[in-house]
Amino acid sequence: MKLLKEKVLNEGIVLSDQVLKVDSFLNHQMDPILMKEVGREFTRRFEGEEITRVLTIESSGIAPGIMTALELEVPLIFARKQKSLTLREDILVEKVYSFTKQESNEITVAKKFMKPGDKVLIIDDFLANGEAAFGLARIVEQAGAEVVGIGIVIEKAFQPGGKLLKEKGYRVESLVRLAALNDGQVTFAEEEVNV
Amino acid sequence: MKLLKEKVLNEGIVLSDQVLKVDSFLNHQMDPILMKEVGREFTRRFEGEEITRVLTIESSGIAPGIMTALELEVPLIFARKQKSLTLREDILVEKVYSFTKQESNEITVAKKFMKPGDKVLIIDDFLANGEAAFGLARIVEQAGAEVVGIGIVIEKAFQPGGKLLKEKGYRVESLVRLAALNDGQVTFAEEEVNV
Repeated sequence: MKLLKEKVLNEGIVLSDQVLKVDSFLNHQMDPILMKEVGREFTRRFEGEEITRVLTIESSGIAPGIMTALELEVPLIFARKQKSLTLREDILVEKVYSFTKQESNEITVAKKFMKPGDKVLIIDDFLANGEAAFGLARIVEQAGAEVVGIGIVIEKAFQPGGKLLKEKGYRVESLVRLAALNDGQVTFAEEEVNV
Repeated sequence: MKLLKEKVLNEGIVLSDQVLKVDSFLNHQMDPILMKEVGREFTRRFEGEEITRVLTIESSGIAPGIMTALELEVPLIFARKQKSLTLREDILVEKVYSFTKQESNEITVAKKFMKPGDKVLIIDDFLANGEAAFGLARIVEQAGAEVVGIGIVIEKAFQPGGKLLKEKGYRVESLVRLAALNDGQVTFAEEEVNV
């Protein structure tokens, strides 16, 4: 996705060989026109799937999520993160480990919003180790619903999340894939051919 | 705002005389078409103001915030909430007390995204005691920028936030104002006349 690549090149800050800071357009300050284009692109890539829900996780997934939901004309659900939780009958819960923050969170979705028969598109801003995406997928499956695919704004392709998700049979569509972050420079992974 | 009032009446759940649950369309599951209309309505109400930034707070403010930013064609910034914080030179910090959760959070915005000369529209999903809105306004003022106004999706007009904000000179535009939540019923406050 050209507009997104340009943003990454012009505004992304390589903090280390693991960390790309994109807080000027994606996860603190957000560019709404870019987010709208992101929503359109996910919709184009998953065209023909009869998606009934978009699922994301607070907070940085909400903007690309709501724009995708708007294009698809289906509801967005955002999973909430909590440190710990009193178990309740009305919620779906999964544990997710964050390598960045080195802590586990419970992520939750109200049962009433996800049902057997739902076809769910998972959206997130970043994919690195895949912990959040796997957690969201397990929530969908707990509900007896189907994961149609996983749409990622920026995939760190040098980390294992994308590969692991594909090995489990999930369709992953990343709008930008980073091959490496070396010497303060972003290297993009080769484009997969999009029909 | 008619569509929003209908949603409140049809899907809102009155949990007590203080709490209206709107998790089917506003703060867990979100209706993207409603959010788009919310963004349009805020843009209409603040027409003529030369807004340069929209500011909200994670997580439920992000969807109405990004839709407003899209209509206005300006960036959205969402303030992050944190339990406690190491002070850093590059961020603006304010303390905000949550009556709902009975805890204080630090809310933060990176200094580089808010500058003197910025004209900022603050957006949030709910207004009750006004703690979050006041915190966001203090962030804007710390930056030497100007608060153009405060746009609220649902104001609990039986709580003091709206009155306190107006007394301090802020322009508050609430799309729906609740006069009371009694016996499981929502009573709307009288409409202010909109030109």
